[in-house]
Amino acid sequence: MNDVQNYSDKRGISVDQVGVWDIEYPVTVKGRASGSQNTVASVDMTVQLLPQFKGTHMSRMVEILNRVRGEITMANIPQILSSMRTSLDSPQAVISLRFPYFIEKKAPVSASPSLFPVSVLFSGFSDSTGGDSFILGVRVPVTTLCPCSKEISVSGAHNQRSFVTVYITFKDFVWIEDVVETIEKSSSSEIYPLLKRGDEKAVTEKAYENPVFAEDVVRNVSEKLSADANIRWFMVETLHLESIHTHNAYARVERFKDRAFVLEEHLRMFKGFPRI
Amino acid sequence: MNDVQNYSDKRGISVDQVGVWDIEYPVTVKGRASGSQNTVASVDMTVQLLPQFKGTHMSRMVEILNRVRGEITMANIPQILSSMRTSLDSPQAVISLRFPYFIEKKAPVSASPSLFPVSVLFSGFSDSTGGDSFILGVRVPVTTLCPCSKEISVSGAHNQRSFVTVYITFKDFVWIEDVVETIEKSSSSEIYPLLKRGDEKAVTEKAYENPVFAEDVVRNVSEKLSADANIRWFMVETLHLESIHTHNAYARVERFKDRAFVLEEHLRMFKGFPRI
Amino acid sequence: MNDVQNYSDKRGISVDQVGVWDIEYPVTVKGRASGSQNTVASVDMTVQLLPQFKGTHMSRMVEILNRVRGEITMANIPQILSSMRTSLDSPQAVISLRFPYFIEKKAPVSASPSLFPVSVLFSGFSDSTGGDSFILGVRVPVTTLCPCSKEISVSGAHNQRSFVTVYITFKDFVWIEDVVETIEKSSSSEIYPLLKRGDEKAVTEKAYENPVFAEDVVRNVSEKLSADANIRWFMVETLHLESIHTHNAYARVERFKDRAFVLEEHLRMFKGFPRI
Amino acid sequence: MNDVQNYSDKRGISVDQVGVWDIEYPVTVKGRASGSQNTVASVDMTVQLLPQFKGTHMSRMVEILNRVRGEITMANIPQILSSMRTSLDSPQAVISLRFPYFIEKKAPVSASPSLFPVSVLFSGFSDSTGGDSFILGVRVPVTTLCPCSKEISVSGAHNQRSFVTVYITFKDFVWIEDVVETIEKSSSSEIYPLLKRGDEKAVTEKAYENPVFAEDVVRNVSEKLSADANIRWFMVETLHLESIHTHNAYARVERFKDRAFVLEEHLRMFKGFPRI
Repeated sequence: MNDVQNYSDKRGISVDQVGVWDIEYPVTVKGRASGSQNTVASVDMTVQLLPQFKGTHMSRMVEILNRVRGEITMANIPQILSSMRTSLDSPQAVISLRFPYFIEKKAPVSASPSLFPVSVLFSGFSDSTGGDSFILGVRVPVTTLCPCSKEISVSGAHNQRSFVTVYITFKDFVWIEDVVETIEKSSSSEIYPLLKRGDEKAVTEKAYENPVFAEDVVRNVSEKLSADANIRWFMVETLHLESIHTHNAYARVERFKDRAFVLEEHLRMFKGFPRI
Repeated sequence: MNDVQNYSDKRGISVDQVGVWDIEYPVTVKGRASGSQNTVASVDMTVQLLPQFKGTHMSRMVEILNRVRGEITMANIPQILSSMRTSLDSPQAVISLRFPYFIEKKAPVSASPSLFPVSVLFSGFSDSTGGDSFILGVRVPVTTLCPCSKEISVSGAHNQRSFVTVYITFKDFVWIEDVVETIEKSSSSEIYPLLKRGDEKAVTEKAYENPVFAEDVVRNVSEKLSADANIRWFMVETLHLESIHTHNAYARVERFKDRAFVLEEHLRMFKGFPRI
Repeated sequence: MNDVQNYSDKRGISVDQVGVWDIEYPVTVKGRASGSQNTVASVDMTVQLLPQFKGTHMSRMVEILNRVRGEITMANIPQILSSMRTSLDSPQAVISLRFPYFIEKKAPVSASPSLFPVSVLFSGFSDSTGGDSFILGVRVPVTTLCPCSKEISVSGAHNQRSFVTVYITFKDFVWIEDVVETIEKSSSSEIYPLLKRGDEKAVTEKAYENPVFAEDVVRNVSEKLSADANIRWFMVETLHLESIHTHNAYARVERFKDRAFVLEEHLRMFKGFPRI
Repeated sequence: MNDVQNYSDKRGISVDQVGVWDIEYPVTVKGRASGSQNTVASVDMTVQLLPQFKGTHMSRMVEILNRVRGEITMANIPQILSSMRTSLDSPQAVISLRFPYFIEKKAPVSASPSLFPVSVLFSGFSDSTGGDSFILGVRVPVTTLCPCSKEISVSGAHNQRSFVTVYITFKDFVWIEDVVETIEKSSSSEIYPLLKRGDEKAVTEKAYENPVFAEDVVRNVSEKLSADANIRWFMVETLHLESIHTHNAYARVERFKDRAFVLEEHLRMFKGFPRI
C-alpha cells in the first residue's frame, strides 16, 4: 500500500503548521489543593511540514496523545513535543489543550463549599534550534461594577458577568490557582457557584465598594504581572457582558520582558481561547 | 440518469421531517416603523416523507426559497408551505427562519438614536388536513436586577444581561415591536446600544427601582399575554447571565388557550432559538 | 435578613420551570466496558413554582448537586429529583446533564486502540402524582455516503461527517454503548479517532458499499428501536454536514408506544442537545 | 455630572486596546457583480488608551458607527479610524467587521442559480505615526477529497466539507470574489447551495479527479498569492471536517513580503474569524 504522504512535493513550500484539531480527550491535571483532577480537554497538535514532503502523518499525533493518556502536565509537554518532532521529522511542533478546571471555593460568609469552574489552556511549542516555549492561559468569570454608573446614579450601579483571560510565560512553575487569584483581586468581586443569603449580601456590597472599568481590570492585572520577575511575557484581556448594552466591552494589555525568538515564533501559532 | 430518491422503500416507515437546515439567506422583513428592512436569515425547510418513497428532493426546497427571495413575510409563508407540499408530494411542511431584526431606539434622556438588534424567529407549519400554523418568536436582551440582593444589601444590587424569549401564536397580525415592548416592560429596564452619561444614570436608576427575579419576568410577560385575546398559545423563557454566579438562572411559562391539532403537531417539530 | 423568595405572590401564576442552567460540573458515569469514567457535565436543574410563592431558592439546587458529586447515574437521578421536590416544595422537578462520554475503539484492521467521544444526555423528570420519567440521549458522529451521488457518478461519491442523535425512554436499563452501536450500524460506516492506512482503506470501502440518505439513517434506527419492546418512546435525528453544499441535511422520526402523562409532561420541558 | 472616564490615572499603564465588541449592525457592502448588497455585520472597535486617562468613551465609538451607517467599505474605513483616533484622543485605533457575503452562483451543468454565502472580515488599523493597515479575510466552504484514501481504496474516497480561510494585505484593491475563486481552485471542488442531479454528478466526479490533502490546499493558495505582486502579506488556513474521524484536520501557511511596522502592530491586535 503506497504511503502517499511520503511522496515528494515539487512546489518548494513549507507548511507552517499541519495536524489535528479539536480532539476531545480525557486528561488528568495537577492542582495545588486537590492533588490531581480529571477533566476533558480539547486538543490541537501540529507540526511544520518541510517542503520536500507531500503530507504529514496525522495518525501518529493521535498515537502520541494516546501514549501519555491521563498524564498531561506542564512538565511532560516538552517530551510530547519532542516525540512529535521526531516521529514526524519536523523542526517545529505545537500542542495546545483547553479544559475546564475546578477550584474548591468557600462562600465568603456561610463558608458553603462549591466547585468553581475556570477555563485553562496549556500551549507548548518546540523548535529544533530555538528550544521550547510554554504559555499558560486562564479565563475566569468575575463581577465588574461600573465606576461611572455608581458615581452619577442616586442608587445602584450596573454590574455584569465579565470574563478575564490571562496568558503568561514564566521561568519557574506557576499554579493555576495563583493566576485565578490575581484575576479575582483585579475585579469588583470574585463570584461563586453557591451563595446563601448572607453571602449574596457580602458579594453585592463588595462589588459596590470596588467599581472597575474594563480598563481598570487589565491595568490591575498588568501591574501585578509586571512586578513579578517570574513572568516573562503576558497578555490580559477582559470581556464585559454589559448589563445596559447589547454589545460587550473589551480591553487588552500585552507586555514583553523578553523578545525571545522562540516566544515570537510560538505567538505566530498561538490561538488562545475561542471568543466568548 | 436514475432518480434514486424516487425509488420505492419497503420498510413502511414515514419520516416525520426531512429537508435542508441552516441555509444562510438574505431576506427582507417588514417592520412597523421602518417599512421593510434587509437582514440575513438562517433557514430550515422540511417535509414529511411518505413510507413509499426512498427520499425527498432537497434541491426543490432551495428552488422554492430562491423564487420568493427578498420577500419572506408572515403573509407569504403559507404559499411557501403550499409550494413545498405540492412540489414534494407531502402532507406536511415546515419552514423556519431566524434572523436579527433592528429597531430604532432613542436613549431615554439624550434621545441619541441607535439600532437595537433583537432575534426573531418565524416558524410556519402546514398540514394537508389540519391547516396552517404560525409561531412568532422574539428574543430580547434586557437588564434584570435582583430583588433579594437589593433588599438585603446596604447599597447596590447585582444585576445582569438577561435574554427573554417569547413564542406566540395569534389570530390577527402582531408586530415584532409590540412583543419587544411587552418583554421590555416586564424587566428591570430595557437596554440600548448607545447611552450618554445622563442616559446611563437613568437606566441604572430605573433598574434599581424595578427589581425582578427570573420568576417575575416570566410572570409579568405571562400576565399580559394571558389577558390578550389575540394570543392563542404562548411560551416565555428568560435566561439571566447571573453576575454573581458562573451559571445562569432560567424560568419558563407556557399556556394554551386552544389545543388545536395543527398547533400540537407544529410544536412536535418546533425547535425555537438555539440555546444562548 | 428577609427571605424575599418566600414572599407571597398575588398574580396567581405558577411558573412551569425555574432554576439553574449551565452548571459546569465534574461527574462520574458508569460505562459497560470501563467500569466508571470521569467526565465533565453541563447541568440544568429546575422545579415548578407554585402560584403563592414569589421565588424559588436556587442555591438549594446547587447544594443538592454538591451532595451527590461524583455519582450521577441513571439509578440515582430519581433520588436527586425527590430531593429537589422536597427541598423546594414543588410538585415537579427536572434535571438534565450533557457530557462527553468515551468509548474504547479498535481500528478495524490494525486494531489500534483509541478513545471515541460521543455526546450523552441524561434527563430526569419527576411529578408528584405522575411519577418519574427518564430520557437517555446519545449523539454519535458517523460517515454517510450519498446513494444518489454513487449511482449517477462514474467514480466516487460524496460523503460527509454526520451526527445522529437518538433519544429514548425504556423499561429496563440500556447501555450507552448499545445505542451507539445501533446508530453506527445504521450509517455508511462508523468512524474512529485513529486509523492507520489499512484501516482508512477499510472504512472508505465500507462506506462506499453502504450508501445511505438522511432518510435511510433515521429509518434504519427507527426499525431497530420499533422492534425493541424495551423502548417505550424514541426520537431519532440526523444532521449531515453535506460535503457538496453549504447547508446541512436533516431528518427526524419520532414514535410513541405509550402516551403516558409523565412522558408528555417531560417532553414539554425537554430541550435535548444543543444544535450543532 | 462628573466625567469619570476623564479622571487621571496614576498607574502609568497604557491600555493597548479598549472599546466595544460584538455590535450587531446592518451594513451595505460593495460586490463585483451585484453592485452593493445588504448584510449584517458583527463589529469590534477599539482604541489605545494613554496612561494618563482613567477610561475611554465607548459611546463615541457607537456614534461614529452610526454616522457611517449603510456605507462601510474598504475605502471609508480609514476615515472611520481617523474619527476614532480624533474623537477618543488616541494614537491607535482598530475596527473589524465580520459578515456573511453572498455570491450568485450557477450550478455547473444545469446553470441553476443560487446564492452562495461566504464569510468576510474587514480589519482596519491606524497608527498616528505608522499610518494605516487593512486586512481582508475570506472564509469559503469547499469539498476536499483525500488523495491517500483514493489511492489505497478499490473504490470511493473519503471527502468532506472544509473551510478555507485567507487573510491578505495588498497594495491595490482586491475583489472578495477573486479571493473566493483562488480558494475554490485550490480545493477538490467548489460547492453550491443548489445542485440538480446532473450537477451533483459533475461535482462528485470533479472532486474525485482532484484529490487534495489539507497541506495541498494551503500550498495551492500559497503558490498563487506568493506569485501575486499585489499581495504584501497573507495567511491561509484550512480546516477539514474529516468524514472518517471525529476530529478535524488543519493546515496553515503565512508569508510576509513586507515587514512594515504598521502591519506587525496590526497583527498583534488581529483576531481573525472565530474558530469553527
